[in-house]
Amino acid sequence: MKIIEGGVTAAKGFYAAGVEAAIKYKNRKDMALVYSETPCVAAGTFTTNVVKAACVLWDKKIVEESPAVHSVIVNAGIANACTGTQGMEYCGQTAKAAAKALNIPEDSVLVASTGVIGMQLPIDRICAGVEKLAAAKADSLEAGHLAAEAIMTTDTVSKEVAVTFEVDGVTVTMGGMCKGSGMIHPNMCTMLGFVTSDVAISKELLTKALKEDVVDTFNMISVDGDTSTNDTLLVLANGCAGNSIIAEEGEAYEKFKEALHYINMTLAKKMAGDGEGATALFETKVINAASKEDARTLAKSVICSSLTKAAIFGHDANWGRILCALGYSGAQFDPEKLELFFEGGGKRIQIYKDGVATDYSEEEASVILSQPEVTVLVDMKAGTEEACAWGCDLSYDYVKINADYRS
Amino acid sequence: MKIIEGGVTAAKGFYAAGVEAAIKYKNRKDMALVYSETPCVAAGTFTTNVVKAACVLWDKKIVEESPAVHSVIVNAGIANACTGTQGMEYCGQTAKAAAKALNIPEDSVLVASTGVIGMQLPIDRICAGVEKLAAAKADSLEAGHLAAEAIMTTDTVSKEVAVTFEVDGVTVTMGGMCKGSGMIHPNMCTMLGFVTSDVAISKELLTKALKEDVVDTFNMISVDGDTSTNDTLLVLANGCAGNSIIAEEGEAYEKFKEALHYINMTLAKKMAGDGEGATALFETKVINAASKEDARTLAKSVICSSLTKAAIFGHDANWGRILCALGYSGAQFDPEKLELFFEGGGKRIQIYKDGVATDYSEEEASVILSQPEVTVLVDMKAGTEEACAWGCDLSYDYVKINADYRS
Repeated sequence: MKIIEGGVTAAKGFYAAGVEAAIKYKNRKDMALVYSETPCVAAGTFTTNVVKAACVLWDKKIVEESPAVHSVIVNAGIANACTGTQGMEYCGQTAKAAAKALNIPEDSVLVASTGVIGMQLPIDRICAGVEKLAAAKADSLEAGHLAAEAIMTTDTVSKEVAVTFEVDGVTVTMGGMCKGSGMIHPNMCTMLGFVTSDVAISKELLTKALKEDVVDTFNMISVDGDTSTNDTLLVLANGCAGNSIIAEEGEAYEKFKEALHYINMTLAKKMAGDGEGATALFETKVINAASKEDARTLAKSVICSSLTKAAIFGHDANWGRILCALGYSGAQFDPEKLELFFEGGGKRIQIYKDGVATDYSEEEASVILSQPEVTVLVDMKAGTEEACAWGCDLSYDYVKINADYRS
Repeated sequence: MKIIEGGVTAAKGFYAAGVEAAIKYKNRKDMALVYSETPCVAAGTFTTNVVKAACVLWDKKIVEESPAVHSVIVNAGIANACTGTQGMEYCGQTAKAAAKALNIPEDSVLVASTGVIGMQLPIDRICAGVEKLAAAKADSLEAGHLAAEAIMTTDTVSKEVAVTFEVDGVTVTMGGMCKGSGMIHPNMCTMLGFVTSDVAISKELLTKALKEDVVDTFNMISVDGDTSTNDTLLVLANGCAGNSIIAEEGEAYEKFKEALHYINMTLAKKMAGDGEGATALFETKVINAASKEDARTLAKSVICSSLTKAAIFGHDANWGRILCALGYSGAQFDPEKLELFFEGGGKRIQIYKDGVATDYSEEEASVILSQPEVTVLVDMKAGTEEACAWGCDLSYDYVKINADYRS
């Protein structure tokens, strides 16, 4: 596997665009397109929130029932959630506009929205945006960048990644983009993520691989504990690489999964590190846990703890809060047995052992906690399983951003 | 039932004190005593955190096994959690000092600590503090106030409440105090709470009443989602009122439960309203839910949502976040059916109905959200059960307080 430049247009046959459509923001790109002339198999995971955005309901149906997918239309600014029957109709009208502009079937169009809940989409501007997108689409890396920028809301940076890998001597490419900064606490998947690949793979295996991988990637990040109404992760594969189709598990499938895992993990970490108001990516790695489930539960509990996150923001080695968060996670363990380390900037120090603090230097700990990427390593000494979770610190700016988001 | 002035010394036969012992804070009271010469029956609920403070382990044993309780010794500043065998020994030494100073059995002494996790108690200063407390104890309301002040950490106000009620023509008094501001997300009970009553009641019924009541009071508040290692709620009853002992359920027991509920709910609300950095008490009332469990789950999910809390801080009627929090709570419901209202300052407006926003005035909503007590009323239209949960808004000061708590 080789990491390359690019995003959703890295793989053969994929086009993208990002344009200004004045949906809610002014003077910035706020609509994006992903398009493949060659029909794609698609897989998706969606929010588990009982309150589901109209676009989530639309996409679930398309992913499950449509024979092929050609495009995704995304808008930022308005979430099209809690918008009743009107919201569903607008999904249909968006798909219709895209079908016309791109000359593809209506049921091959996926839609995704992110932004304020409860407002109706300005459907005329959406349809005008679709036409602009169709006219602007290109298969260049630049077109992928523009799309990645257009889907941002409170994100401070756009998020892309791409890799190549070999299947049967054929080079396959996979790339992705995502957005997400607040209301991030994935449960099945998170926010908006779009992955494209020119791999030839059966829909069944694409779905299986995606389902297995989100558990350890997008579902292991959290910014604020709020599971969005709009969480959507879509993977499109158009087969343009020309490999013999991956239709059963084996070496080729494993290589595909490895690449998908790298793409998903990278996008998920980018999202966590760009959490609203974040000054640091905060990773918790739990090793030697009694079970995989325990490892995941413990790791996630630590990165979700508001008190721990505030301590990271303050570069304060307040490890008691980490013990506390492990303790209320729901996993059972012996607090006297586990060991705790801080890692950052290439350094590691042990903080806790045998039920009490080690004789660590507060100064050294504070230097580690001042790094842009901080890791808490928890050795449970209870088994062989491990898991990683990613979040960010809790800063003044998180409050600032969310106290007047709608204004 | 009549609300009266006072706290833990309101009931007959109860003494209290609050003194400066320099445990961690300087120039402020940081140790408290509650004492009854007459032996008390005691009931307690404690944190469900796997990581339990030494004092929690000590108290569980005393409450379960000791024939009678005479006193509680509390310190603020250091939590005596994650302190290993040394921490347990210090509980014993504290009890021994109290037994000597008050001339009571060692196994009649409860201990409670709150503050930084992972530091050892300065046991010499603790023992000196116990002697000062014994010398200073009094049964005046003032002594109760001093105790309530001494147990504060990041609290901005001390928290007391007292009531009288009649049992068989005899006036019974009950009073309480509590502290709690951060690391508040009770699961079984929360933070430190102490309730005293001169009621004569069997230990069995005292325990039953407490257990039943915390579910709807202390367990329904949250400041930051972090369940402390030290949560402790203790109820002591010394029988000094002279009522015939309440030993079976019936009218007298119901009257006692009503008073206990008022005391617990009042203390719990005071705690939520004084959450770290809070500018408002944030109540969510769910009515007409399909089940009691649903009502509790839904109400608690809303008051725990960081995004909703930040919106309340910003006086922003961002109701979509409330819908979102209801949606990921785990309870099942039809989002199109429920109705949403904001209440505050004696006003109420409807925000959401039939799956979309009503035509409410943003200005009017903002006025309601600027009140010191804000209520979100959720009518699920799915049954007859209801529940209330209490939290607070999320402000810059929450981050400030917790980014450098240990400094």
